[in-house]
Order: sequence, then structure tokens, then C-alpha cells
Amino acid sequence: MSGNTYGEIFKITTFGESHGEAVGVVVDGVTPGVELNELYIQAQMDRRKPGQSSVTSPRKEYDVIRILSGIFEGKTTGTPLFIMLHNKDMRPEAYDDIRHHFRPGHADFTYLKKYGIRDYRGSGRASGRETAGRVAAGAVARKMLELRGVRVLAYTKVIGGIACRTFDESEIERNEVRACDPEAAARMADKIKQLSSIGDSCGGIVECRIQGVIPGLGEPVFDKLDAELAKAMLSIGSIKGVEFGAGFAVADMLGSEHNDAMDRSGFLSNHAGGILGGISTGQEIVFRVAVKPTSSISVPQKTLDTSGAERIIETRGRHDPCICPRIVPVVEAMACLVLEDLYKRQAALHA
Amino acid sequence: MSGNTYGEIFKITTFGESHGEAVGVVVDGVTPGVELNELYIQAQMDRRKPGQSSVTSPRKEYDVIRILSGIFEGKTTGTPLFIMLHNKDMRPEAYDDIRHHFRPGHADFTYLKKYGIRDYRGSGRASGRETAGRVAAGAVARKMLELRGVRVLAYTKVIGGIACRTFDESEIERNEVRACDPEAAARMADKIKQLSSIGDSCGGIVECRIQGVIPGLGEPVFDKLDAELAKAMLSIGSIKGVEFGAGFAVADMLGSEHNDAMDRSGFLSNHAGGILGGISTGQEIVFRVAVKPTSSISVPQKTLDTSGAERIIETRGRHDPCICPRIVPVVEAMACLVLEDLYKRQAALHA
Amino acid sequence: MSGNTYGEIFKITTFGESHGEAVGVVVDGVTPGVELNELYIQAQMDRRKPGQSSVTSPRKEYDVIRILSGIFEGKTTGTPLFIMLHNKDMRPEAYDDIRHHFRPGHADFTYLKKYGIRDYRGSGRASGRETAGRVAAGAVARKMLELRGVRVLAYTKVIGGIACRTFDESEIERNEVRACDPEAAARMADKIKQLSSIGDSCGGIVECRIQGVIPGLGEPVFDKLDAELAKAMLSIGSIKGVEFGAGFAVADMLGSEHNDAMDRSGFLSNHAGGILGGISTGQEIVFRVAVKPTSSISVPQKTLDTSGAERIIETRGRHDPCICPRIVPVVEAMACLVLEDLYKRQAALHA
Amino acid sequence: MSGNTYGEIFKITTFGESHGEAVGVVVDGVTPGVELNELYIQAQMDRRKPGQSSVTSPRKEYDVIRILSGIFEGKTTGTPLFIMLHNKDMRPEAYDDIRHHFRPGHADFTYLKKYGIRDYRGSGRASGRETAGRVAAGAVARKMLELRGVRVLAYTKVIGGIACRTFDESEIERNEVRACDPEAAARMADKIKQLSSIGDSCGGIVECRIQGVIPGLGEPVFDKLDAELAKAMLSIGSIKGVEFGAGFAVADMLGSEHNDAMDRSGFLSNHAGGILGGISTGQEIVFRVAVKPTSSISVPQKTLDTSGAERIIETRGRHDPCICPRIVPVVEAMACLVLEDLYKRQAALHA
Repeated sequence: MSGNTYGEIFKITTFGESHGEAVGVVVDGVTPGVELNELYIQAQMDRRKPGQSSVTSPRKEYDVIRILSGIFEGKTTGTPLFIMLHNKDMRPEAYDDIRHHFRPGHADFTYLKKYGIRDYRGSGRASGRETAGRVAAGAVARKMLELRGVRVLAYTKVIGGIACRTFDESEIERNEVRACDPEAAARMADKIKQLSSIGDSCGGIVECRIQGVIPGLGEPVFDKLDAELAKAMLSIGSIKGVEFGAGFAVADMLGSEHNDAMDRSGFLSNHAGGILGGISTGQEIVFRVAVKPTSSISVPQKTLDTSGAERIIETRGRHDPCICPRIVPVVEAMACLVLEDLYKRQAALHA
Repeated sequence: MSGNTYGEIFKITTFGESHGEAVGVVVDGVTPGVELNELYIQAQMDRRKPGQSSVTSPRKEYDVIRILSGIFEGKTTGTPLFIMLHNKDMRPEAYDDIRHHFRPGHADFTYLKKYGIRDYRGSGRASGRETAGRVAAGAVARKMLELRGVRVLAYTKVIGGIACRTFDESEIERNEVRACDPEAAARMADKIKQLSSIGDSCGGIVECRIQGVIPGLGEPVFDKLDAELAKAMLSIGSIKGVEFGAGFAVADMLGSEHNDAMDRSGFLSNHAGGILGGISTGQEIVFRVAVKPTSSISVPQKTLDTSGAERIIETRGRHDPCICPRIVPVVEAMACLVLEDLYKRQAALHA
Repeated sequence: MSGNTYGEIFKITTFGESHGEAVGVVVDGVTPGVELNELYIQAQMDRRKPGQSSVTSPRKEYDVIRILSGIFEGKTTGTPLFIMLHNKDMRPEAYDDIRHHFRPGHADFTYLKKYGIRDYRGSGRASGRETAGRVAAGAVARKMLELRGVRVLAYTKVIGGIACRTFDESEIERNEVRACDPEAAARMADKIKQLSSIGDSCGGIVECRIQGVIPGLGEPVFDKLDAELAKAMLSIGSIKGVEFGAGFAVADMLGSEHNDAMDRSGFLSNHAGGILGGISTGQEIVFRVAVKPTSSISVPQKTLDTSGAERIIETRGRHDPCICPRIVPVVEAMACLVLEDLYKRQAALHA
Repeated sequence: MSGNTYGEIFKITTFGESHGEAVGVVVDGVTPGVELNELYIQAQMDRRKPGQSSVTSPRKEYDVIRILSGIFEGKTTGTPLFIMLHNKDMRPEAYDDIRHHFRPGHADFTYLKKYGIRDYRGSGRASGRETAGRVAAGAVARKMLELRGVRVLAYTKVIGGIACRTFDESEIERNEVRACDPEAAARMADKIKQLSSIGDSCGGIVECRIQGVIPGLGEPVFDKLDAELAKAMLSIGSIKGVEFGAGFAVADMLGSEHNDAMDRSGFLSNHAGGILGGISTGQEIVFRVAVKPTSSISVPQKTLDTSGAERIIETRGRHDPCICPRIVPVVEAMACLVLEDLYKRQAALHA
């Protein structure tokens, strides 16, 4: 109801503010008897954490997770997993200058309007730090999906107007921006560094491909597979759009071009992105998300303070000039959460 | 759980197959004491029904609604509204040729994989007819939103590669394609008729603008206003993408361009589409959806029958060559459902 | 949210007022491919309907159900079943005398306080007629449970202070009060007729036994099997209490008496009523519910009218002097709904 | 879905095993801007903790709570409260003797059947320790209810066959058993000590009275106020029955006795327990729960070990011979959770 829970059967609830004492997640509906340990989850956390490279924020966010319940002798018990991360690099005083005004592009204004009260320290609950719990829970879902033969892969496709032209999966984790084209990756990194030097930021596009999903996944009508993925993606702070398969290009296509014909070898194309009528076809699922430029920039901007007076603001602090590389594991985590939940829903339907 | 329900407090459940006996909706969580009658709802149904113009399907779908519960002496009672439409123009025999094969671009294949059984008559539950219940329920939500001062308006922006260049709201309901630019509308209609004559179809883009929403609407984290709208939009059969504000164009923007600055007069731009951190800013909410070309075409296509043998199929029947004009009221209905639910959630938060 | 829906996976939503046009239910989450027809459901409806015997109300309620969606060629499709009953014996004028005052023991007062508006015709939604939808949906669940080897049986145990002393299952449907002891049944019927002649009513106790449930059903913590059954039972209008196994007698028992010991043959007693820690043991599940005397009596009673003035009321109309015989199929229906949902939840857990 | 969450709007999720690292609760849907501190919650925790008197378990459970999110500058922010308790008095080795067999009256057998794996340490999640999170969350609800003018009071009514004959609220917290009659309280305490000396246990009845609830609370049909309370009560481990108002005594009452008449001064009796048609009347809400004898006794009992062999077991350890005194705050906490949620649901209905 209050928006801190995702999922129907495989269900997660996150909590915690950026500069409170802890953030974390309760993961409920986990299949019992599955081997799971903290290292497996930590590996995903490490892909999300700041300070991984010269193009991401140098903050030393504490992303060391602890599992405090739901595991016994190395296996899940079927009771809720509770996974917590303490916030250790809190410097609330660093945020004193944002206490009294609204940063453009941030949720400062809307949180105050919504709640009538605002934990201004590091954006509180609206901080990207909130996604730590999602990535931890997503790793649990990923573990389950591995056992089901499903593979979820996201990567940077465009940054600051520079697009990948080739797709080489093995390159993705080798470059600072998690792009699928090493040549484009180098230019993207240069662009980010140049923008960083002038205190500006840029956006991009992240693509996700999912292999190994059975045909038949996704609920018709409101909880279509693409509808669930769309919600999951738009629930990530900086994402402003999502498209499946041919996506917005369908506006220029004919039915005879767009329809994916079949012969005995299977589907002959995949304009639908692996989803028909909201249900998986068994093909690769493909979607892309639009990532906005990081809101925190030190370029001077006009804004208001909480008393309504006009101000010029230059946001200081340690921020990513382009969030794409760090959004990649969050996109994957959310996709894993969607799929694991739908697998369980499909099982329940036929039970 | 099975995907036939939308909403947390203002909650709807649809049922019914295209060529079963009836389709309909139960609307729960309706504020008691609100004046509501069948005519108000019927007006929205009439915008969705087929056969409205020369560019839409000539079928005579029965879109006459009846409210069978939840109203007493012209007012809502707070108990569930039950709204039903009988299916009267059923011609199951017309679908005999699709009984044994999978139409490209349709959910025939995926429904069979999901359920192991398929009501093939007119796509069953995957038919666009299912949206009749949504539009009826959406009209109830729209009634409530009117009382709150909210206005939801959708219209065709692009069809078959032809884009609107001007925006004249008064023109929208005057042209066959519900476009906001009369000159473009005429060219779109020509294009549709030409495609229709060769049995092909085309896609487009529909835009939605919402005015009068209070700042503060939308739940943080998973149930962000844009996340809920994204899910609602992708739950509509033919929609393959959604973008808010600047949308996918953010990939080429700088933070200093994209951030919406403020001065005493309010926000100075609206690249965010009226949503920050998943919560409404009080500005106009703007989003666009990508509508795929209608899957039912009579151009010959390769496919399989249910025994796995290859076939060439030419889908006969009465279909819209471009679904944009009829998707407009469905987009509005879904947006109304999202907003009314979030208004009630916001009230519950502060109760 | 508004209380018209029960279940998490096997989920039902009822609608309709006693003297509106129709009542009914949407049943979602039904396993596809199961043979089901209207006759099977009608058989349960006929056990619930009024006018079955000399001790129940002579009203001719229309309990003829129609399934309008979710069935194709005699089998469930996995999409929502929509089951409707038209209200045909409506005589709103018969209720004119209750329009302006609050009948003692009825929900007239509380509905007006809750909603600020009241459909006074035959108690509106608070009428026992609402349970028709439950019994129809319960029959769908019962069909599934039969396939799982589960048997749900309820019967009258006490009426008006007269208790059954023997248990003979074959007698239950043979006597007017659905008691398990034919000798007690005869005395109960006499008591009811005598009370009926003086316009009074009486209460009773109904017991339910469930056989064939696998061990392991029920969710720990909040959704325990007994918690779900307790909610389901108290959701029936006239029920004022529920107890499992030894029930309230535990207040006088020692742990050494109450604990159910085990040996190789299994449990040696069943004081727990087949549930430990909220989870089924595989033993017979046993519970009892307290049924209050019918509120509608013609004995004069003090009350208020809606303007706040004092009145003496003698409720006229066709009412059951003891509701136990007709509550029996409702108790069974609700138990079936609880169990079928928990079976699917258990399958989802291990999926 | 997995039963670890209660509530629709004011929603709690508990986690943690008795002898894992921590137990706790996430409380979502909390009204923002409410003053709340750890001391207020701790006061309720202290009423629940073991070792309060000579009749309760001498274990030193760590019931010191910490609030790690959702509070800022002493006020709720509207984001999830996360409340945690570390388990500090863990002695897993003390449970080695229960590792391999099923204790009569415990959930050992059913958890293993349900999950196929069992955290046997101190009953794991089935332990009474799980209620610590409920009491913490209940204190948050209680704070809200205080602001609404609602007062929730539970107390022991019967223990081991000894019933209170008087009601003196001021005595309840003054005696070891939380009974409302000091004379009965003394006899109850003697009885408990005597049973404790022979390693046996006894059951009882706890009553709850709620004052100050507005008329109109509770949702009709499935989520009636009494249905929600019944579920909440039966979700507490040792409770085997619940009754409202006259309760099971209705089986012997006439309608003319049971109906609560009204005159200008209001209702003239309260046999309904303050609830009509599932909705509060504005009168005092009254219900009672049956509490089974503590399962852990040292009297020898027959049971099986996990290999299926017969065993005699004498449960050692530090257990309450009668759980009534410590269940009192849990009953109150659950009642508070039910009411706060329904208050918010009522506000949402009329929003």
C-alpha cells in the first residue's frame, strides 16, 4: 500500500534512509531448502556500490550485507530472509546546505509535499542507497532463477549520445561503463570525465536481455510480464521510459513487418521482445530503459528554498556524473524479482 | 494474483471472454454518496466501441453497460459496483479457421503454453474486448477525479510515421484518428485507409496529459506514480513502450538541460513530466505510449498450427488497421484508475 | 481493501445487494483444465436456499446460478469464473417499514454510520443473500478439493440449548436442521416451530470436520490455518465465535492432558483440532462456530428511527427462526475457500 | 502470501527466529509527523518479556528494541519503521535434545512437513519470541489510537479453571497474572506455582475491552471487524478460540434476549460485543480468547523422533507454566494493529 513492497508471492519489503542507521530488506516467499550464502549476495552488491572506477562516485558506501534470519545450516528455511546493511559513511553535516532548499531534479520538493516532513539527509528514502536492498533481494531471486535455467543480463547501450555498435557480452564487466561495445565504452568514459570536470552530468540507455524463460510466464490483463517489468523499471529512481522489443520504433512499422512469423524452427524474428499478450514466448526477452542525467550537478541552477525564496544552488558532494554503470545491476535485480515472482505465480495457477 | 485485478483501494476486477456470454467489471472501494448514472459511463464506452468511423472496425460490439449493484437512488453506496456488458454480436463460427493455429502477433501461442487450454473464440480473454470493463471502471474513476479537479486527456500523436506538429485540443474528438493536429489527422486517415485496402496495419504513438493533480501523489520506492502508470499502460494489449516527460530523449541530454529549475513562479520547465522521485510535482503530467501495428492482417504470413505443422495464414475478420484512435479512451481510463487509487492511498497515509 | 474479496491466490470477490438486480461472484486463480458445470454448483446452492423445509424461511429466493465466463467446452480455462444470480423475488415495498429505523441486531445502524448512505431494501449488502456468491465460489473450491482427496463436512451440533449426543453422518442431510443426531434433530425442529409461532428465534452451534488434508498446510505467523478459518467463519453474518479442537475447554485443562502425544500409529488424540503452530497435522481438522439467534423477530423491541426518535418495532417478513441449517453449507463453503487457497500457497512456496 | 505480513494500509512484516541473530518488524503505512520514541515502545516490550515475576519464565530474553529507520528528529516520516531486537541470550546447545524429535503440542512436526527443513533451535520461527515484533509494531499502532481516543485493555479472566468474579481495572497490572480480580489472581498464582513444581502447565481465558472506537469501523463481508480480530487472535500461537460479546452463550439465547435494543440513551445492552454486521456500533468492543496450556512440560510424554522411532520426552528448559499473563500484551498489540488498519481503511473509503 505504501509502496515499499514488491511482489505477490516472492515478496520483498525495503526500508531505510540514506543517512539513517541502516537500510535493508525482508525477502518473503523464498523456496525452502535452497543453498544460499552471504558471499553470493555480496558479489551483486559489489557491482552496485559506488567507487568502483574513475567514472563513479568515490563515496565509500558500506555495502557489506548480513543475513540475520531465514537461513539455517547454509540453506533457506522458507521463513523471511532479513538482510541488512549498516550505514557507516554517514556525514549528515555535508547535507546541511540542502536542508532548506529544493534541489532541481530531486525529490526534495515532492517528498515535503507528500509527507509534510522531510528527512533531508542525503535524500533520505529517495536516495539511490535504497536500491541496495533491492540488489540484495534480487540476488536471492537470481539464485532461484539460476536453478531454473534463466539468465538475466543488462548493460549500457547509450551514454551521452554515444551508442554501442557491437555486442560483445564478455566486454561488459571489463569496462568502466558496463557497455557492450569496448570502443564505444572508451568514448563514453571520456565523455563522463569531461562532464565531471565541468560539474555536469548525462543520461543514457540500458538494455536488458533475459534468456531461458519458459513460454507461458506472465499473467494476462493487468499483471502482464511486460507490465510488471515496466513497473519494476520505472520504480528505479532515474528511469524515465521503458520499451520492449521494437519499442517506440513500432510507430513507424507495418503489421506485416512487426508480426513475428513462425516456422518449424520457431519464431523467425523477435520484434515483440519475447512477450505476446503479456506472456513469455520462450524467446529472449529484450527491453531498454531511458536513464536521466544525474540530478546532482554543480552547475549553478535556480531554485527555491523551503520558505519560498529564490536561490542559486550548486550541488556539492560525491555523485556519479552518469548513473548507467551502477544502474545495470539494479535493472538486473528488478528483472530477477519480477521473474521469480511470476514463476511462483505460474506454479500456483496449475497447483 | 492472477492478474485480473488492478488497484489497492480503488480496485477493479475484470472478467469475461470476447465471445463468451458477457464481459464486465467489479469496482470496489468507491466513495459512497457520489452521484453516478449509466449515461455518464456509457459516454466513455461509446468512445471505445468499434465502428465509430471509416477507419475503425465495422463490428457492432455491444457496448451497452448495465450497473447491477452498488448504486441506490442515483448514488454510490460504497459497496461494489458491478457493471456488465452482454456479448451480442458473437459469431464463433467466424473463428473456426483460427481454432487450430497460432496467429502471428497474437497471444494464441502463449495462452496455450500458459494454460494448456485455450478459448480460441475471438482471442478469448486476450481480446481487446476485455478493455470494455476497464473503460467502464475508468469512467467511475474519472467521475471522482472531476470532483477533485483533475482532467485526463489522451490523443494520437503519431500514426504510421506521420506526426502531429500542432496541438489543438478542440480538434481531437473532431477527427477520425483522435489526433491533436487536424492536418496530420487527415493524412493519418488516408494512410490507414490505404493500408486497410491492402490488408496491412500500422502503429503509432499516443500521448496523455493530466492536469490538476495535487503535488504529493504517488508512493515512493515500488509504487511510484510513473511506475504505476507504466504498469497500467503496458497492461494494455498493444502497447510496447512508455516514456515520461523528456522520455528516451534523456539519453542525449545533460543534467543542466534536463533538471527543471524553479523560481517564484514555479517550475521553469517540465522535462520530468510532472513527476519527481515518483511523486507528482503539481505540474502537468505528460507521458507517451508506443502502439504496435494491429496483429490481425490479411497479408499472408508463415505460422504453425497446434499440431506443429507449418501454415500460411491470412487473418480475415473485422479489425482496426490502426488501434490508436480506440486506444485513446483506454489510456485515459487506465490513467484515471491509477490516479483515483493513489488519491485514496494518499488520504489513507495521512489519516 | 473494501472487504469484498477473500483469498490470496484462489481469490473471490462478491458483489450485489439483497434487493438489487443481481448478486454474484468472480472467482479468480482457478486451475485450468478442470471439468466443471453449473449443476455441480447448483447442488450446493440448493442446500443454502430458503424454503427447503418447514423450519426455514418460505421465501422463493432465486438461487439459480449462471456461469458467464471462465469455462470453455466444459472445462475451466484459468481465467476468472463469473457466476451470477438474478434477484427475482424482489419486493422492495415490503421493506418500506424498515426504511426509517434501525432493527435491533441488524446492521442498519452501523451501515449508515459507516457509509453515510444505506440501501435499506432487505438489508442491502448485509443480507444473508450475499452468501449465495460465497456458496457458488465455495463449490468451485470444493470441486478442486475433491480432486485433492479433501472432504469438508459441517452440521448442526446445538440448537436452542438442545445438543446432539450421537454422531451419525448419514443422518445430517435427512433432517430439517442438519443435525448429526436424529433424536436431537426432532427436538430442535419442535423448538424452532414453537419459537416461530411466538415470533422469536434461537441460536446454536455448528461443527465442521475436514478430512484428507495433507500435513503442512497453513502459513506460519499471521496466516495460520486456524487464523484463516477463524476469519472466514467470523465473516459470516451471524457467527459470534469459533473454537478449534478442545476450544474454550482448554481453560480448564493441563498441558499433560491437552498435548497430543504420538506413537508409531500417529497422534494418540486430537485436542489441537488437527492444527499445530497454525499448520495442519494431517489429522481431522475440527472446529465449531457459535450462531446467534436470528435478529429478525416479531417480538416487539425498542429502537430508534433515523431521526433519533424512539420506536417500538416488530419485524415482519419471512425469516428463519434459527439460521443453523442454512449456515451449514456456508460454513462448508468458506472452509473450502480457505483450504483451496492454502493448497495453492503451499505449492507456490515450494515452486 | 507467506503469512509474515498483517494489515492492508497500516501493514507490518515480522521476521526472525527465536535463536537466530535477531527478530524484528517493518511497520509500513505509518502516518507522518507523529511524535514517537523508543521508550514508548519499550514500555510495551517490557510487559511481554519473560522473567517479570515468579510465575513467568526466568529467561533473560533481550527485549531492548532499536528503531533504525522511519523516524527523523523524533517524528515519524511516513516511510517504513524498522524495529529490531538482537537475540542475546542464545543457547542453541540447550536445544540439542529437541533436534531430533517432535515435542507434543509444538509445531516441530508440522514445520518439518511444511518446509522439509526445520530450524529446531528454540522452535525457530514458531517460538513465542516472534511476538516481540508484533508487540513493538502494536505499540506504534497504540500511539496512533491514543491520538484517536481509543483505549485497548486486555486481562486474564480465567486460569486453570479459576475465574475472576469482579472487575477492577486498577488491579490488573498489580498482580502477577494480570487478572482483573485480585482475590482470583492470588489463587491463580498459587495454582501456577503448584503446577510448575510438578512440571505441568495450564490454560486460561483472556478478555479484551476496547473503548472509544467510532461507529462505522470494519469492512463488510470478508473483512468484518470481528473477522479481522478473530484472525489476529488465532494468529497468536497458543490461542484456540475467540468469541465476541455473548459468544458461545448465544447457543442458548433467544433472539428477544440477544438483540440489543436502543432508546434515546443509546444501546440498552451489549450482547453483540460492540459489533453489528461486522461494523463497530460505537459501544465497548468485547471479546475473549481461549489460551491453551503451555506445550512445554516436563511430565513424560510419548512422541516420535524424526526417524520415526518412538520416544519418551520430558521437555526441559525455561518455560511459562501458564502463558496468559504474557499473552495479555500480545492480545492488545494485535487488537491495536487491527484497529489502526481499519481506521485508515475507513478514511480511504471516504477520501
